[in-house]
Amino acid sequence: MKISRRVYDESGGSRQEEKVLTISVKRGWKAGTKVTFAKEGDQIPGKVPADIAFIIRDKPHPTFNRDGSNLVYTAKLTLRDALCGTTLRVPTLLDGEKEVNLRNDIVKPTTTRRLQGFGLPFPKEPSRKGDLIVKFDIQFPDRLSESSKQILNDVLGHH
Amino acid sequence: MKISRRVYDESGGSRQEEKVLTISVKRGWKAGTKVTFAKEGDQIPGKVPADIAFIIRDKPHPTFNRDGSNLVYTAKLTLRDALCGTTLRVPTLLDGEKEVNLRNDIVKPTTTRRLQGFGLPFPKEPSRKGDLIVKFDIQFPDRLSESSKQILNDVLGHH
Repeated sequence: MKISRRVYDESGGSRQEEKVLTISVKRGWKAGTKVTFAKEGDQIPGKVPADIAFIIRDKPHPTFNRDGSNLVYTAKLTLRDALCGTTLRVPTLLDGEKEVNLRNDIVKPTTTRRLQGFGLPFPKEPSRKGDLIVKFDIQFPDRLSESSKQILNDVLGHH
Repeated sequence: MKISRRVYDESGGSRQEEKVLTISVKRGWKAGTKVTFAKEGDQIPGKVPADIAFIIRDKPHPTFNRDGSNLVYTAKLTLRDALCGTTLRVPTLLDGEKEVNLRNDIVKPTTTRRLQGFGLPFPKEPSRKGDLIVKFDIQFPDRLSESSKQILNDVLGHH
C-alpha cells in the first residue's frame, strides 16, 4: 500500500514523501479488522505524527456471500426439482464442486443445507473452518395452462 | 411519562421529586425520533440541570412490519394457491380486510403486491400515506407420494 506523507528536514523545509506500507492479511480476517501503522501520518514540526489506520473491507465475491466464517451459496432450482428431487452440484471455494443430494426431501424456500468445513478459516483458529451454507432460489414457472393448473390443484390439494 | 429527579430547596436540602412529562406522539413518527425536555434532569447546586431526552422506538406489531412509511404484511399461501390462483383477504391497519386478486398470475417467492395508501402517514405530510406491501410465505408440502411426484414432474417439466 503506497502512501504519501509530508516530512520536514532539519532546515525546516518540507516535502512529500512516498512510502510503501505492507499489510499481511491473514486468512479469515473479517471486515472491519483495523491495521494501524504508528506515527506514519504527516509530520508537523513539534508534534508527534498521527497514526495511519487501514480498515479491511470484503470485496464482494461473484459466487459466494460471506456470513462471518461461513460462506453462503444460493443455488437456483426449478420448482420441479424442488418438489420432485434432484442432485445438485455446488461449487466450493477451494475444493471444486460437491454433490448435494436433494432426492429425498422437498426443498422449500426456507430450506438450507450445510456443507461443514467448506467455509472460511476462523481468524483465531485458522486450522478450523466455517461452513458452506446452501440456500435455494426456487424458480417458479411464469405461466401455466388451465389444464396444468387443474392437475396441480388435484395433486397438491391432498397436502 | 412519569420521571423522578433530585431537586434542592433554598436551605440546601434535597429530595426526590416526581413529575409527569407529556409527549404528544405525532402520527407517522419514525423510530429514532428524539424528544428533548430542556433542564428537566437532576438538579445539582450551582449547575444547570441536564436535559432529558426520549427516543421513540417502534413497538412490534403482531400483524405488520414497518418499513419507513410503508407497512409490510406477509401472507401465508399454500403452494397450490400460489400456482393455481386464489383471492386473498389482507388485513389493513384501519380499513378492515381488503381483497387481493391472485387469480391471474402465479405467485412466486419474490412476488409482492402493493396496496397504495394503506400504509402509515408521512411524518412531514400526514395527509398522505405510504403503502401496504404484501409479501408471500409459500407453504410447500412436507412430503409427496411417488405418484404425485411423477405427475408434477410431467406437468412442471414443460415450463
